[in-house]
Amino acid sequence: MQALIKTAAQPGLTAATCPDPTPGPTDAVVRVKATSLCGTDAHIYNWDPWAHSRIHPPRIIGHEMCGEVVEVGADVTMVSIGNYVAAESHLTCGRCFQCRTGQAHVCRNYRILGVDRDGSFAEYVVLPENVLWKTSPGLPPEFASVQEPLGNAVDAALAEDLTGHTVLITGCGPTGLFAAAVARTAGAATIIASDVSEYRLDLAKQVGVDHVLNAKTDTAEQLAAAIREITAGEGVDASLEMSGDPSALHQAFSAVKNGGRVTLFGIPSGPITCDLANEVIFKGIRVHGITGRRLFSTWYRLAGLFQAGLNIKPVITHTFPMRDFAQGFELINSGRCGKVVLFP
Amino acid sequence: MQALIKTAAQPGLTAATCPDPTPGPTDAVVRVKATSLCGTDAHIYNWDPWAHSRIHPPRIIGHEMCGEVVEVGADVTMVSIGNYVAAESHLTCGRCFQCRTGQAHVCRNYRILGVDRDGSFAEYVVLPENVLWKTSPGLPPEFASVQEPLGNAVDAALAEDLTGHTVLITGCGPTGLFAAAVARTAGAATIIASDVSEYRLDLAKQVGVDHVLNAKTDTAEQLAAAIREITAGEGVDASLEMSGDPSALHQAFSAVKNGGRVTLFGIPSGPITCDLANEVIFKGIRVHGITGRRLFSTWYRLAGLFQAGLNIKPVITHTFPMRDFAQGFELINSGRCGKVVLFP
Amino acid sequence: MQALIKTAAQPGLTAATCPDPTPGPTDAVVRVKATSLCGTDAHIYNWDPWAHSRIHPPRIIGHEMCGEVVEVGADVTMVSIGNYVAAESHLTCGRCFQCRTGQAHVCRNYRILGVDRDGSFAEYVVLPENVLWKTSPGLPPEFASVQEPLGNAVDAALAEDLTGHTVLITGCGPTGLFAAAVARTAGAATIIASDVSEYRLDLAKQVGVDHVLNAKTDTAEQLAAAIREITAGEGVDASLEMSGDPSALHQAFSAVKNGGRVTLFGIPSGPITCDLANEVIFKGIRVHGITGRRLFSTWYRLAGLFQAGLNIKPVITHTFPMRDFAQGFELINSGRCGKVVLFP
Amino acid sequence: MQALIKTAAQPGLTAATCPDPTPGPTDAVVRVKATSLCGTDAHIYNWDPWAHSRIHPPRIIGHEMCGEVVEVGADVTMVSIGNYVAAESHLTCGRCFQCRTGQAHVCRNYRILGVDRDGSFAEYVVLPENVLWKTSPGLPPEFASVQEPLGNAVDAALAEDLTGHTVLITGCGPTGLFAAAVARTAGAATIIASDVSEYRLDLAKQVGVDHVLNAKTDTAEQLAAAIREITAGEGVDASLEMSGDPSALHQAFSAVKNGGRVTLFGIPSGPITCDLANEVIFKGIRVHGITGRRLFSTWYRLAGLFQAGLNIKPVITHTFPMRDFAQGFELINSGRCGKVVLFP
Repeated sequence: MQALIKTAAQPGLTAATCPDPTPGPTDAVVRVKATSLCGTDAHIYNWDPWAHSRIHPPRIIGHEMCGEVVEVGADVTMVSIGNYVAAESHLTCGRCFQCRTGQAHVCRNYRILGVDRDGSFAEYVVLPENVLWKTSPGLPPEFASVQEPLGNAVDAALAEDLTGHTVLITGCGPTGLFAAAVARTAGAATIIASDVSEYRLDLAKQVGVDHVLNAKTDTAEQLAAAIREITAGEGVDASLEMSGDPSALHQAFSAVKNGGRVTLFGIPSGPITCDLANEVIFKGIRVHGITGRRLFSTWYRLAGLFQAGLNIKPVITHTFPMRDFAQGFELINSGRCGKVVLFP
Repeated sequence: MQALIKTAAQPGLTAATCPDPTPGPTDAVVRVKATSLCGTDAHIYNWDPWAHSRIHPPRIIGHEMCGEVVEVGADVTMVSIGNYVAAESHLTCGRCFQCRTGQAHVCRNYRILGVDRDGSFAEYVVLPENVLWKTSPGLPPEFASVQEPLGNAVDAALAEDLTGHTVLITGCGPTGLFAAAVARTAGAATIIASDVSEYRLDLAKQVGVDHVLNAKTDTAEQLAAAIREITAGEGVDASLEMSGDPSALHQAFSAVKNGGRVTLFGIPSGPITCDLANEVIFKGIRVHGITGRRLFSTWYRLAGLFQAGLNIKPVITHTFPMRDFAQGFELINSGRCGKVVLFP
Repeated sequence: MQALIKTAAQPGLTAATCPDPTPGPTDAVVRVKATSLCGTDAHIYNWDPWAHSRIHPPRIIGHEMCGEVVEVGADVTMVSIGNYVAAESHLTCGRCFQCRTGQAHVCRNYRILGVDRDGSFAEYVVLPENVLWKTSPGLPPEFASVQEPLGNAVDAALAEDLTGHTVLITGCGPTGLFAAAVARTAGAATIIASDVSEYRLDLAKQVGVDHVLNAKTDTAEQLAAAIREITAGEGVDASLEMSGDPSALHQAFSAVKNGGRVTLFGIPSGPITCDLANEVIFKGIRVHGITGRRLFSTWYRLAGLFQAGLNIKPVITHTFPMRDFAQGFELINSGRCGKVVLFP
Repeated sequence: MQALIKTAAQPGLTAATCPDPTPGPTDAVVRVKATSLCGTDAHIYNWDPWAHSRIHPPRIIGHEMCGEVVEVGADVTMVSIGNYVAAESHLTCGRCFQCRTGQAHVCRNYRILGVDRDGSFAEYVVLPENVLWKTSPGLPPEFASVQEPLGNAVDAALAEDLTGHTVLITGCGPTGLFAAAVARTAGAATIIASDVSEYRLDLAKQVGVDHVLNAKTDTAEQLAAAIREITAGEGVDASLEMSGDPSALHQAFSAVKNGGRVTLFGIPSGPITCDLANEVIFKGIRVHGITGRRLFSTWYRLAGLFQAGLNIKPVITHTFPMRDFAQGFELINSGRCGKVVLFP
């Protein structure tokens, strides 16, 4: 089959032919219909220090995907040949405290598709049946593939109920945009979003954000003033920090009202200096660290959100045949895109 | 002023002139712009046993309303003359355990507007400032008036989060219809509603219900089978019992999935025989008894729901000048209406 | 090996020799050190209608147990030979909505040890590794064996937090007594317990109940008055219904304060007439149906409760060699016992 | 009356005679029986920059107290002359979003006793009736007085349920010690506490801490290793940060298991550099900022905890007649004390 392989410890990926994967007894082989690019893939493509420390070439990368089950191992009972599936990318151990108490999303031993084992930038991928998620046949492949990062957005947005509440989203990368779309479907009262890119703020409007704030052209004080004005001086009920940027993080804490909540999802590139007394303690807020997706509550809920009319179409800005992957990574590095999807 | 008065312990109401109310130091006088009819008002109008035991004529009735503040007591600070307000109808004691722990909606000593003190079927009503709810000037009076029962629906629907979840609503009276509208705005995946009236099921479709079931023409078994089919055999995540009818109640318990939740809001007219082992215990469900509105979280949330696009227009089926109140009560008694609103 | 077998569709059990069990690849064989008697076992022993409809002889019964792993299948990784283990008696499917969303305790397809497959009233029992619970070696076998029903009590008592709260427990059978012990360890403010048996009320005192009420000698009105007096007129924060008895159930609802919660665990023998308006709705309470144990949060928490000093010693009233099982069932049928444990 | 007054903008307090306070219509005058020293009082005594910016002399300071109601205003209904009361020190506005939604502990406009109005280091203090907390006559004054900081500890410890869970408490000042006592009563499985003072670690043992760790003699790595060993490699379910010290804060985050929770109560003296990716996000934890006490749920719960046997006796290390206040402040500044109580 054709696949995109990190063949050596250096930037780039190689499109190459390699053997078709074969399933173990509880595995299924999936023919990939769509596979989307994540920031993690870009880190690996660009070969940054994190990638260098974590990836052991050769490795087929890619972990966001959907496809059709074409072969199943002898003991497989949860999926059948012909099923249209997406994949949970975290393969959890099933044995740790977290896995045994309904918190597999923070399994202490999970392995990641396309990082710790061969991934989905390929014609076929083999996966344990228990990470496959049967998807409604009506969902187009470019939507089905992005359910994985969309699940992150669901958990970030809905860590606490948003219905009827005001929300600030700092960072309009794909997951921030997904979170905005989720908030819209969940009946948020008012959605405010900030980013440094006009391109992305425009996408934010398209997924239903009420007020967009440009963090490049406006100072922190101006942003804070705008949020105060929009919320009639109250601040927001919920801040979703989706950027990892220090000034956005402080904005998120500054904007939330006393007794509100902040979700942290964006990964800072290093330590951040926090005024915990004023940002957290005196405000009496709750902070939720969000990683992964709740297995599999989040996936069920996501299916329900699609039924409720969740609109992520504006976020899928580009699609390419898999062989044009380099164009996709260029777009990611430029920031002038939402989600980029490859078709093998 | 003109008012509708229960003058004697017998059916009916009398339109009569009576003195304008005067405010105490922490009260405000509100000129009523709209006042809506509740089932409770019909009980009083019809003079059923409950009304007989509870109401002490003479009494101006009515407790759903909105209007304009026209006079304030000396110590009033929360509202001003000219404010457009609705009213929380439960006047709570502020001193009991429930009031002091954020649960004033189940205050042990609350008094009800239009039941325990003169109400809103009048040109003017006097109320303590702390039950007045400043309402967005853009909300039409017939919508502003029904915020009180709408608040019941908010608490019934959102006792637990509905976003992405399937829900059954048994009973499409006004509060059931409001709950359906709330569920729609909250991003429910699929909304199923049942009633014995085609008229009301048609209103249910207009507020966004996906599947309507006629409990008059279909047997309990047929209803259960329909719900199973709609939910692919899973049952619903949440059942909202809004009718008080025994067979609807059993349908609500039957339809909910293991681990789900049932909200009880409709008041049964008498004891109901329940199979608690199979309906509650073995299913491992949660049951929420809902009464009143959370003071004032529900009101804030309702304001947010309106911002999020809550559509209750189809539920307001009839409006009359106050003098034509008898027509309104006839409609209520016939069941061929949603909410009926009077304009003094 | 020796085992107690329901050999035919009639009352009684037969002590007999049968083949030692052999493990499948993910199973372990456990040498039983202690196995305790549950009401379910008594139903099967007495061969009541439920047992007749559910049990297919021949069947080794018994589902509460502890012992030592003496043999493991080829693929077993979670336990080792020599481990001291108890068993979760519900073998869940792992594939249904409930299992995949952290609610395996309400799995739609679970099978029960000693009911749907051969159980623990035997020298050896074979079990899948994933239902074995490694138990602290310091816990005596008669305590380790009863962790299964104790887990029910943990979930019944701690469905909501009890620390600093007042609680009523209706029914002082073994699980009610366990719930009282859990409430004591959890820092309940005041524990009130009712039962019809002085013997069991005496056990209740021994596990730390503050006030015991005799539901045989006192009328419902007297019981309600006593609870009001103990709680200074407030009612209790939480009622745990552990008996299945209709009058106890009404007492539980009557005693709980507005905004409180009721746990239903005791299985009524038939339908019960409920005044839902006054018992649930107007009180604005939450009702929790409790079945099984949360897998495996409840087991972890139970281990923590033992570390915190949980005292269940008074509840283990009788122990016998397994051959004297008939004496044990006589005791259960008489009601003059707490928990009865057999040693194979 | 005699009182301790900050007469000028400089260190120290002056014992002086001043007029007895008189009550407004909804106020009560309380004869102070005991009044305890808080860190805040020491800041004011020492006249640090915070005190300089906040306190406007002349001011009677002190906000932890209990006493007897000796006079009531004309409209007072919640307390009577002779009542034994403690005081909630935060006087909330009753009008902001937080106050109206059951979150008065984070009222945006609250004023503090002994900071923004004259306090309790006096023979008499005047207070609005709605901040007075009727206290069981059996509770000695030195215990009744410290209910205010004890309430902080209740909220810090019980922000999530502790029953059966492992907990780390970083910082054994009085509130940390109170939190340990609460955790013990709440049935925590294992309580670990750290501090830099052997004196305070000894008090920690006296309130029931299982493992004490000396953060002065041990390195961060040694402390982390000790916690890992105590928790069998799992980490703790809950970390309560009660010190405000940066290294303690990092220890708290490091020790908590994936999916656990951290409470932040100790006030850092300045910004702290946090590795939010590894400390919060990848762990998927919840962080609770704690300030004040929930009005009045926390007070009710505290009454329940005393009934459950809460033991704070070891924390009350010193008592003095009010005139010897300087000795009390010396002790606070030395750190060789738990709680210091003055008797006017």
